[in-house]
Amino acid sequence: MTVQLWTNCRAATMQAGHAAAYGLVEDAAIAVEDGRIAWIGPRAQFPPGLEERCAMRHDARGALVTPGLIDCHTHLVYAGDRAHEFELRLQGASYEEIARAGGGIASTVRATRAASGQELVRQSLPRLQALVAEGVTTLEIKSGYGLSLEHEGKMLRAARALGARGGVEVRTTFLGAHALPPEYAGRADDYVDEVVRMLPLLHGEGLVDAVDAFCERIAFSTAQTERVFQAARKLGLPMKLHAEQLSDSGGAQLAARYGALSCDHLEWLGAEGAQAMAGAGSVAVLLPGAFYFLRETRVPPVELLRQHRVPIAVSTDCNPGSSPCTSLLLMLNMACTLFRLTPEESLAGVTRHAAQALGLHDRGVLAAGARADFVLWDVERPAQLAYAIGANPRIQTVFEGRPL
Amino acid sequence: MTVQLWTNCRAATMQAGHAAAYGLVEDAAIAVEDGRIAWIGPRAQFPPGLEERCAMRHDARGALVTPGLIDCHTHLVYAGDRAHEFELRLQGASYEEIARAGGGIASTVRATRAASGQELVRQSLPRLQALVAEGVTTLEIKSGYGLSLEHEGKMLRAARALGARGGVEVRTTFLGAHALPPEYAGRADDYVDEVVRMLPLLHGEGLVDAVDAFCERIAFSTAQTERVFQAARKLGLPMKLHAEQLSDSGGAQLAARYGALSCDHLEWLGAEGAQAMAGAGSVAVLLPGAFYFLRETRVPPVELLRQHRVPIAVSTDCNPGSSPCTSLLLMLNMACTLFRLTPEESLAGVTRHAAQALGLHDRGVLAAGARADFVLWDVERPAQLAYAIGANPRIQTVFEGRPL
Ligand SMILES: [Zn+2]
Ligand SMILES: [Zn+2]
Repeated sequence: MTVQLWTNCRAATMQAGHAAAYGLVEDAAIAVEDGRIAWIGPRAQFPPGLEERCAMRHDARGALVTPGLIDCHTHLVYAGDRAHEFELRLQGASYEEIARAGGGIASTVRATRAASGQELVRQSLPRLQALVAEGVTTLEIKSGYGLSLEHEGKMLRAARALGARGGVEVRTTFLGAHALPPEYAGRADDYVDEVVRMLPLLHGEGLVDAVDAFCERIAFSTAQTERVFQAARKLGLPMKLHAEQLSDSGGAQLAARYGALSCDHLEWLGAEGAQAMAGAGSVAVLLPGAFYFLRETRVPPVELLRQHRVPIAVSTDCNPGSSPCTSLLLMLNMACTLFRLTPEESLAGVTRHAAQALGLHDRGVLAAGARADFVLWDVERPAQLAYAIGANPRIQTVFEGRPL
Repeated sequence: MTVQLWTNCRAATMQAGHAAAYGLVEDAAIAVEDGRIAWIGPRAQFPPGLEERCAMRHDARGALVTPGLIDCHTHLVYAGDRAHEFELRLQGASYEEIARAGGGIASTVRATRAASGQELVRQSLPRLQALVAEGVTTLEIKSGYGLSLEHEGKMLRAARALGARGGVEVRTTFLGAHALPPEYAGRADDYVDEVVRMLPLLHGEGLVDAVDAFCERIAFSTAQTERVFQAARKLGLPMKLHAEQLSDSGGAQLAARYGALSCDHLEWLGAEGAQAMAGAGSVAVLLPGAFYFLRETRVPPVELLRQHRVPIAVSTDCNPGSSPCTSLLLMLNMACTLFRLTPEESLAGVTRHAAQALGLHDRGVLAAGARADFVLWDVERPAQLAYAIGANPRIQTVFEGRPL
C-alpha cells in the first residue's frame, strides 16, 4: 500500500479532549494509507518506519488543515426556487396573497413532483457544488418535497446520484413527514399511515440512511412523529427530528426516548429537553441560516446546551423556503455572530459534532484510523474561518486520500 | 471599430424610469463598440446598419445580464485581521481586555503601518479577487488605517495597484479622518490640521478621487469634519461621510450642505437629515454587513429615504473590525432580509445608485453610451441574486467590452 505524507502544515485535528484549542498540532505530519489517516501528529515525532514507506510527499506550504467539513442537515434536492415569493413579501404582499400566488412549500412540492429525476439532479447540482467548493466532503440530504412513494423515492435517488456526481459522500434522510401533501388535506393521520408504508419500501431500495420528521404545531404532532419513529425503529434506522423551532412541543424529549441522533433547530428548547438530549447522546443541530432568513428573535439556548454537555452541530439547512443557503462557512460566522458560539464550537459543529449527528464515527476529526477527508486552507488560525464573511480560503480538499 | 454583439439574453438594464421592473428587456441584444455600449434593446429592434458591422457575436445562452456590480464603500486595504479579537469576544472577554490584548482599530493601524506597500497589496488582493469573482467591476477603497502622510499614501497607492492587478476600476477615497492615531491622543484638532495638510499632497500625487470622514461621538465632531470638507472643496474634490451610525449627530445635514456624494451607514438618520440629503442629491449608502456583524438593532430609516426619494446604495463596508465581508451578493440578501429593501432596490443599490455614490455617470446601468461593464448570470430572474445566500451564479464578467 502506498503511503502519502503531508507536511509543512498546522492541523486543527478537532479531536475531543485534546489539550490544545481546536486540537491544534503545529508543524504537523499527516500520513495517509488506503484512504485512511495512518498517522497524525507533530512532524518531529513522525515514526521513521512509516517515513520509509512514504511514496508520495505533499508540501502543504504552511496551510491550516481541518477535517473535511460536514453539512449534516440539508434539503438541497428540490426543483424551482422561491425567489418570486421572497420578492413579493418584500413588496408588502401578505401571506395570503403569496399563498394565492402559489407560494409556500406547496410550490416546491409541485415543482419537485413535476421534475424528472434527471432534472432534479441538474437543478440541485450547483448547490452541492457550492458546498463542495467550500470544503464539504460529507453532507446529508433529506427528502420531503415529494410526499408520495414515487416522488420521495425520486428525491432520494437524486440525492444518491448527486453524491456520485460531486465526488463526495451523501447521507440520505427520509423526511416523508415534512409537510402534509395537498391530496391529504385534513387527513394528517392518513398521511402518516402512508409515510409508514413508504419507509420500508424506500429502505428496501437502499435509499434511507436515517429518518426525520417535522414535529411542530404547523406540521406533525408528537403522536404522529412517534408513529414514524416506531416504523424507523422496526427497521433499525437511526432517527433525527426537526424540533422546537417555533414552540416547545416536547419533540426533543420524544426524540431522546428513541435515542435520536440529533434534534435540529431548537430555538424553543427547554431545560427538560436539553437534559433528555444529554441523556440520549443526541446532538443539537443549530441552523443559523433559517434563524437569519426567517428573522427569528429567539436564539437557541446555547448556554443550556453547554451546561448539559449536549454536542452542538451547525448546518446550512439549505432549502428554498427558510434558508436558501449554500455556504457552510457563512454558517460558522452566523453561529458565532447570531448564536454566540465560539469559533472553536462552530468549527466542531461542522466537523466532529456534525459527524456525530449523522451517526458517523469514522470522520469529523483528524486522527489515526479516520477517513482521510481533509481540507487545506490559506489561513493562519482556525478562527479566521468563522470570522470572515463571504471569503473562501480553501486551497484543496482531500477526499479519502485523493485530491478532489 | 469592431462591434461585438451579445444576444440570447435577458437584460436587467437598471435604467431609471424604465417601464419594466429592473428595466428588464427580454430577448435583448447588446452591441459594444470601443468599450462602450453602442446599443441595447429588444433583439427584434436591433438596427440593421449596426448588425452589418458586427464582427464578433456572443451567444449568452439565456443568461441574465446586469450592469457590472459596484461596491461603493470599502476599507479593503489593510494588514492583519481581527479574528483573534473576534474569538476573544466570543469567549467572553470584555472590551477592556481586548484593548489590553492589543485589539481594536489600533491593532489594524499598527499592522498596516508596519506592512510594506507590496505586503499590503499581497494581503488585500484576495479580498478584491473575492469581490471581482462575484461580478464587481468598480469598487471604492478608502484609506484610514495609515493616519499619517506616509502610511495613508501607501494605502492609496496599494489601492491603485490593486485595481491594476485585479483588472477592474478602483476609486480611491482619502479617509485620513477615520480615527485618531495614538501619537495624537487627546489632540484631535491637531490631527485634523495634519489631515488638512496631507490632503493636497496626496491629491497632488493623483491618489484621491474623493474625501471621507468618520463623523461620530467616538470619532470626529461635525466642526472637525467641516474643516476636512473645506479642504476638499478647495481642491474641488467630492465628499462622502460616515454619518449617523451610532447617533444622530447632524452629519447628514453637514454633508448635504457640502453637496456630498453620499452619506453612509445612517442607522440613526432623522427626517431633517433625509430631507437635506434629498435636497443635495446625496446617496444613502447602507451597510448591512456592519449592522449584522455589530449586532445592531436599529435599522436605517428605509421608508423615510423612500419618502424623500433619496437614492439608496448598498455596499460591503469590507473592513477588519466591523464588516470582514467580501461578498457583495450576500449584501443584497442582507439588505433585503435585515433592512427590508426589495430585491430591485438592493440591485439598484449595487449598480445605478452605487455609481451615483461615487459620482460616476458612465456606468451602473446598461444603456447606450455607458461603459460596457456587465455580468452574465445563470439565473432566471434578477430577484434570485438577492434571494440566494452564499451562491455565486456568475457566468462571466465583461469589463470595458472585454471578458474579464
Ligand atoms: Zn430542515
Ligand atoms: Zn466604512
